[in-house]
Amino acid sequence: MKINGKNYRTVWMEGTIIKTIEQNQLPEIFKIVDIIGDGAVISAIQTMVVRGAPAIGAMGAYGLAQAIQNLHQPTKKHIQHLRDKIILARPTAYDLEHGLNSVVVMALTGQTEDEIKKMALVAAQEYADRSAEACRLIGEYGNALIKNGDRILTHCNAGALATVDFGTALSPIRAAHRYEKSIFVYVDETRPRLQGAKLTAFELYQEGIDHAVIVDNAAGYFMARSEVDMVITGTDRVAANGDVANKIGTYEKAVVAHENNIPVYIAAPLSTIDFSCPNGDTIPIEERDPDEVLSINGRRVASDGSPALNPAFDVTPAKYITGIITEKGIYKPGELHLLKKQ
Amino acid sequence: MKINGKNYRTVWMEGTIIKTIEQNQLPEIFKIVDIIGDGAVISAIQTMVVRGAPAIGAMGAYGLAQAIQNLHQPTKKHIQHLRDKIILARPTAYDLEHGLNSVVVMALTGQTEDEIKKMALVAAQEYADRSAEACRLIGEYGNALIKNGDRILTHCNAGALATVDFGTALSPIRAAHRYEKSIFVYVDETRPRLQGAKLTAFELYQEGIDHAVIVDNAAGYFMARSEVDMVITGTDRVAANGDVANKIGTYEKAVVAHENNIPVYIAAPLSTIDFSCPNGDTIPIEERDPDEVLSINGRRVASDGSPALNPAFDVTPAKYITGIITEKGIYKPGELHLLKKQ
Repeated sequence: MKINGKNYRTVWMEGTIIKTIEQNQLPEIFKIVDIIGDGAVISAIQTMVVRGAPAIGAMGAYGLAQAIQNLHQPTKKHIQHLRDKIILARPTAYDLEHGLNSVVVMALTGQTEDEIKKMALVAAQEYADRSAEACRLIGEYGNALIKNGDRILTHCNAGALATVDFGTALSPIRAAHRYEKSIFVYVDETRPRLQGAKLTAFELYQEGIDHAVIVDNAAGYFMARSEVDMVITGTDRVAANGDVANKIGTYEKAVVAHENNIPVYIAAPLSTIDFSCPNGDTIPIEERDPDEVLSINGRRVASDGSPALNPAFDVTPAKYITGIITEKGIYKPGELHLLKKQ
Repeated sequence: MKINGKNYRTVWMEGTIIKTIEQNQLPEIFKIVDIIGDGAVISAIQTMVVRGAPAIGAMGAYGLAQAIQNLHQPTKKHIQHLRDKIILARPTAYDLEHGLNSVVVMALTGQTEDEIKKMALVAAQEYADRSAEACRLIGEYGNALIKNGDRILTHCNAGALATVDFGTALSPIRAAHRYEKSIFVYVDETRPRLQGAKLTAFELYQEGIDHAVIVDNAAGYFMARSEVDMVITGTDRVAANGDVANKIGTYEKAVVAHENNIPVYIAAPLSTIDFSCPNGDTIPIEERDPDEVLSINGRRVASDGSPALNPAFDVTPAKYITGIITEKGIYKPGELHLLKKQ
């Protein structure tokens, strides 16, 4: 992705040091931070220094590869213990499990300590490269859905910052813009953490794509006025039946879009599809700190005695989803089994 | 309403000085401000010192009555000119028009300057008293819908602070609590201005009613899990066919509730029903300053180059509304014509 005219990935490795764009300070401050140690990896995920399912997957893969470098005579048990520790950082994101497992499997093909360590690093790098390429292809397939003049609504940040590069939901939007289609993007601000206002708007501004930020409450207003042609979001986990877990609020947008005959596309690499999860009811939903709701920028907004509830994700049943844009093409939610063999 | 154990109305008059609770500083600071002059009345409405359709109606009535006191030999033309000036402060709220017209009609029954001035004050006071009584009755009728153990979702603030007293949506909730039913209220925070987190949560806390603040995005999550038994909101204007204009986001909540077979009630005094408005398409929708979206508590949250769109209200079609709770009983949207003669 371009930031201030320079090309970046969201997360990468230099030697054994993981580098990532610190997303909690965007859009005000653009800063690269070093992540060293599995504690720092877990903390970076939990405090959302890095966020977005594919980016978390790569962070997990790099993090595990890095941690393996510090093991003395690493065994399968050691490696799996590290994997199990890191996976708890974000239970809803399937890519994290996927990224970690890629490293576990490839590292365990090593016969010696050196081989195990080397293979772990290779596995993490290959995982990140494959992840970036998958997102690029999602852009190409998704672009075919976008007509000149389309007005697209997106929720949360499923941009390059949520992935290794290109984005999921924003990848077709970037591609359409690159192919010189005239498009307009409604950016849901996405409370509580405002990833839309802070990150998606930042990415679109950096790429020169026409957009406006709206409060989450306003999405339905524009849909009902026939001013939205399409909804595209990312996802943290797709179940085998096509139910989709994504940032809290995605369910509402999908229901209201469906009611207004507006197509809803979910952009996701295959690494986000969890065939072991039969449907959305079995996807774990993370509850986050109520203070994310009660305070904004460190200042309490709600009445002092009032508590809050803060589910971070919701599940959108497959019936509200028009198609899932993957690096292998666009599939209806009921067609995901076709991807299982690949 | 009770605040810190004392009884208050939201807006009232002492002599010719209008008093109102300054709502922009709640819940942090509880302060009563004096409103003197039609410029101050308009500004209090536009800057949301006072907000909520019935409270604005009373503020308009008091404001016009106050302004008439300062006219030299007031004529119909003078009075109507003042009315037309104040009405522009909040085009979506029908109560404002209603409150102003009450004062115009009664003031013009006066034959002398003194009579006109006196009748204007009497009209405003009667309007405010009737408005408070209507809200009290809405509570009694609405209470009959609430079962022990019900979990109720509300949007924005349709509490005592949005009315002269008691509230519209919160009046049935207060009544149910007074009748010792065990209830729980989900409070949508209601971006952009956070009237739910700031005002509804404050009122519920002050009354000791069990509640939690949620981001607007989370309402659908709790509905889909069958953890919401009923939605109750207020409204700024009800069209003759039962379409309802209310705070942005109400439409989304109603569509998602409807999809989940959860009843949606709108609580509104008759003064909010505009029989001259055939349907929602003819209700004017106010667009507010984009900075309400882009900045929170004076601090910019969105990317610097990004614009915003900020429609303040939306229209919920009658088909999503189960009933309208008025001071004359509960009516289906299609039955509003029965109220026209009263």
